[in-house]
Amino acid sequence: MDTCIFCKILNGSAPSHKIWEDENFFAFLDINPVNPGHTMIIPKHHIDYIFDLDEPLYSELFRVTKELSKPIKKATQAGRIGVVIEGFSVSHLHVHLVPINDVNELNPTRAKRATAEELETVAISIRNELS
Amino acid sequence: MDTCIFCKILNGSAPSHKIWEDENFFAFLDINPVNPGHTMIIPKHHIDYIFDLDEPLYSELFRVTKELSKPIKKATQAGRIGVVIEGFSVSHLHVHLVPINDVNELNPTRAKRATAEELETVAISIRNELS
Repeated sequence: MDTCIFCKILNGSAPSHKIWEDENFFAFLDINPVNPGHTMIIPKHHIDYIFDLDEPLYSELFRVTKELSKPIKKATQAGRIGVVIEGFSVSHLHVHLVPINDVNELNPTRAKRATAEELETVAISIRNELS
Repeated sequence: MDTCIFCKILNGSAPSHKIWEDENFFAFLDINPVNPGHTMIIPKHHIDYIFDLDEPLYSELFRVTKELSKPIKKATQAGRIGVVIEGFSVSHLHVHLVPINDVNELNPTRAKRATAEELETVAISIRNELS
């Protein structure tokens, strides 16, 4: 039985506010955003630790991170997009892309639950910037 | 006049606890570590925002990040190495590599000043794992 919540999102048995996907990666909104537009990029193949990801996927993940930073920054009008890779909450590698405007905004204790409506509104804005 | 503290470290006019360097990047300990072994990797060319860094340096930076994660993890015996890129405190791109063992340890408010002796002890351990 598949118990990884991100694998469930990938196989469609759990919902998500999807931003983008390709053959190897999937991006969706964090339901507990530090700031609106807080996005996670995950590999479609289950792996836990970022530095266990082999090439060419490792470099591809950071190319995707750079590409997605642009529509997220534009949609949220953030000063910049911060990057966090931690990985203790869910053991499926995820890169956090967080719109930030000031020092210490990446503090994970600032995360709070957003409503489905709030999330979908932001997701639409980001997807519009992507297309 | 060069006022960037990281440029001063690079030109030798400010001290640092160096871990490693090559032609394009320099790694040294954060003097306000979140945990012992907290390392920063910076490009030798002054640039502010991570996503303004062009290829091939952009991908090279993350290859260096992966390579340095190994001796840092080994020297500190951390569960994993977390990654944070924020950039509001110093406007010279820096990738934080932080030894972590539990959720929420990447909280930047946990950072506290270390003594030069504490820093050099950790720097020696990491450099030993590199060699």
